[in-house]
Amino acid sequence: MDVQVGKQSLQFQKAPYILSSASIVGKKEGEGPLGNCFDVVGDDDKFGQNTWEEAESTLQKEAFGMAVGKAELKKEDIRYLFSGDLLGQNIATSFGLMDYQVPLFGLYGACSTCGEALSLGAMCVAGGYADYVVSMTSSHFASAEKQFRFPLEYANQRPLSATWTVTGSGAYVLGTRRSKARITGITTGKIMDYGVKDSMNMGAAMAPAAADTICSNFRDFHRTPEDYDKIITGDLGTVGQEILIDLLKHEGYDISGVHTDCGIEIYDPKKQGTGAGGSGCGCSAVTLAAHFLPQVEKGKLGRILFVPTGALLSTVSFNEGKSVPGIAHAVVIEHAG
Amino acid sequence: MDVQVGKQSLQFQKAPYILSSASIVGKKEGEGPLGNCFDVVGDDDKFGQNTWEEAESTLQKEAFGMAVGKAELKKEDIRYLFSGDLLGQNIATSFGLMDYQVPLFGLYGACSTCGEALSLGAMCVAGGYADYVVSMTSSHFASAEKQFRFPLEYANQRPLSATWTVTGSGAYVLGTRRSKARITGITTGKIMDYGVKDSMNMGAAMAPAAADTICSNFRDFHRTPEDYDKIITGDLGTVGQEILIDLLKHEGYDISGVHTDCGIEIYDPKKQGTGAGGSGCGCSAVTLAAHFLPQVEKGKLGRILFVPTGALLSTVSFNEGKSVPGIAHAVVIEHAG
Repeated sequence: MDVQVGKQSLQFQKAPYILSSASIVGKKEGEGPLGNCFDVVGDDDKFGQNTWEEAESTLQKEAFGMAVGKAELKKEDIRYLFSGDLLGQNIATSFGLMDYQVPLFGLYGACSTCGEALSLGAMCVAGGYADYVVSMTSSHFASAEKQFRFPLEYANQRPLSATWTVTGSGAYVLGTRRSKARITGITTGKIMDYGVKDSMNMGAAMAPAAADTICSNFRDFHRTPEDYDKIITGDLGTVGQEILIDLLKHEGYDISGVHTDCGIEIYDPKKQGTGAGGSGCGCSAVTLAAHFLPQVEKGKLGRILFVPTGALLSTVSFNEGKSVPGIAHAVVIEHAG
Repeated sequence: MDVQVGKQSLQFQKAPYILSSASIVGKKEGEGPLGNCFDVVGDDDKFGQNTWEEAESTLQKEAFGMAVGKAELKKEDIRYLFSGDLLGQNIATSFGLMDYQVPLFGLYGACSTCGEALSLGAMCVAGGYADYVVSMTSSHFASAEKQFRFPLEYANQRPLSATWTVTGSGAYVLGTRRSKARITGITTGKIMDYGVKDSMNMGAAMAPAAADTICSNFRDFHRTPEDYDKIITGDLGTVGQEILIDLLKHEGYDISGVHTDCGIEIYDPKKQGTGAGGSGCGCSAVTLAAHFLPQVEKGKLGRILFVPTGALLSTVSFNEGKSVPGIAHAVVIEHAG
């Protein structure tokens, strides 16, 4: 059977296993509905560092260490690292991971990075290029606000469609050694641009990309929504979810019964004031690790489609009046008996 | 024979071919020693656009189109795109390539991105995941100065150790179809940090990473400098070259007879006032495409080690007093008879 399926998907013949995962989050995420599920919840969002960027680097450092430890491996066993973050020039990744001295492929997929890192990591292991790799990503509320929006001290108001950047990092060890979950396929996203220019409505900007990738996944694998126990987008939030479900209905697919979104799961918007939901690379990374992957490992979920979503903007592109294009990378994760 | 060699290298059993390459550069690069070798030299560094960022996006758009055309393919034949650039959140890549609607893996490796893109593209083709991929990158003098340094209008003075960001984009079609050059192996870099804090001396910041990757390549493949007709770093410039040769002498390797650097080749520093040499993701990408790859294709160079080098800083990390760590990714390119 061919590994290349359809126009933009791969079905792995030697599907790599997810040996372990780790999640570390900030105080607010710890107070949310998934608070008890994360490996580590910080009291102080600076995580003992002097700057927000150093705090985010610390998240990556800790998540890597925990994931490798849980897989009962040492850092020397990890042949390649696939990681990225939201900050300009990926500084959270570079400064967080450099001490481990593992060959690094730096990635940028905005908040779709967890999907991109898992995809490339899975391709790497399935291709025989490594016995163990780590795929990971992070985001931090305060470093992201500083990067993309206003100084926190300015106390800018936020529209209800805005999302709240998750402080957290999720890391995964992928490898050839058997475990309870494996990545059986991927669908790699194209950039979709419907011309949305509102950086405070990322859900609307990213929903077309999620719809396109999910649709491609169905076509390439000859599947329907019923073939998945859950279809889990990254950080569309409540506004983006509605658009996604609508867009896919126009394509003849009703995912309303199986769809959820990490940005919707991670916070309680009424109690926590988080607007349309959580966002950031860390959002999908920690929610998969802490909430969905354990259910796959236990067999409660047999097959899920995990679709982190990214908004490809910068302050420069925004200030120059450009639109906010989106991208989404899908990963098929199945229970391994 | 195993595809994994040594600690951080791969030797491809089905080595992917480089079917075509394309280079587009700005006016200054066109006036340099390699001016006649590039596919396109622009008269106007804005390339008909309104902003420097749009100009850089146009470079990527043109380079992709030319490379795919030279390989006698259509964009629909390209299964995956591997690309990145220097700008925050990779906007040159996203806005330049989105119209092609090819599944995209966005990368960030600073000026090592050409090596990272060729490495992942080669892994992808050799793994049977695609018949054709495009690996590419870009940089632009004016968008990079705006991103990292001072407004051009400020006319800031530059120390002699500073390099000049190349305006250009290089693209490569990799695939299974036979051609005159192939990627037979890769050595993926680790982040190296010797504590250099001077962002106007990138050569010194990146030389340790180049030395480490080249050394690892020699050890992993059981090779010496004599096994390569050329060892070509990305953008160390004259200051970095001296440090690299010294560092490798301490490891017992003398590469002085075979080493050159794309940043040294691309400009005439005395006539062009370019300081220590060229830099930027585009520097190594266009110099390989226009100058070195044709020599491999003709068999004048039998085997080269191409080692793009990146400095992992941002204005935020620099302003917060952090060092400038480096990374370098090596690609072994051989003549195919």
